[in-house]
Amino acid sequence: MTRTVIAQGTFDIVHPGHIHYLEEAAAMGDELYVIVARKANVDHKEKPICPATQRRDVVDALEAVDEAILGHEEDIFVPIEEIDPDVIALGHDQHHDAAGIESELERRGIDCTVERASGRDPAADEEILSTRLIIDRILERRG
Amino acid sequence: MTRTVIAQGTFDIVHPGHIHYLEEAAAMGDELYVIVARKANVDHKEKPICPATQRRDVVDALEAVDEAILGHEEDIFVPIEEIDPDVIALGHDQHHDAAGIESELERRGIDCTVERASGRDPAADEEILSTRLIIDRILERRG
Repeated sequence: MTRTVIAQGTFDIVHPGHIHYLEEAAAMGDELYVIVARKANVDHKEKPICPATQRRDVVDALEAVDEAILGHEEDIFVPIEEIDPDVIALGHDQHHDAAGIESELERRGIDCTVERASGRDPAADEEILSTRLIIDRILERRG
Repeated sequence: MTRTVIAQGTFDIVHPGHIHYLEEAAAMGDELYVIVARKANVDHKEKPICPATQRRDVVDALEAVDEAILGHEEDIFVPIEEIDPDVIALGHDQHHDAAGIESELERRGIDCTVERASGRDPAADEEILSTRLIIDRILERRG
């Protein structure tokens, strides 16, 4: 039996924090699908700079990832229903309510667990482990 | 016999143009090493935003890449001598003089060919296939 894991995010500028999250998610099972948020579904932070297909293609090229797909514009649970995962792996800093997700999964008859990945320990002092901080650095140095 | 390929670059913000280059380089042999330029060696364009170790770690996480290493600060041919590749794959837009590189390789007794990767056909109109253009977009939208 293949144990399928779903991770998800915006992945506007890929950094080692993303890699850590996706490698940990991959280790929770045998096959990792990543749902890449469409611009319309990003409303908890500023809209991404890179187009959705570009963000998907970069994530899809990562070794930890078996398949990256774009999210559904109206109902974010649609690809989850299609993939029917064993595990949904949340990022350590993703503002999702795990209990809320679990009850919606149950309502839809998707039998899977929701786990949360750990944060990455900074491997080097200088690491910039968020898209927002990389953008801040760009504005500071080039703006 | 393992056919070893070297690719190289700055890889400040990874985009599908990088992925295309590295996948094409990987297809030129069996094992792909990527030399990631240190900040001190980037003088033909603006200095990278992300630290060298971070850029190396992201490149190293790509499926096409067997090993990403940092370049040498003083003599960029040192890691090439150590790896002793069969092929050096240049990016389609890298301003290297292939003939100059070949003669330096010959002088050092490194028997390898220098090939140039193709450019990526834009898969989508919106794609932003250079770090500089991604930074321009950031400055335009957030600056």
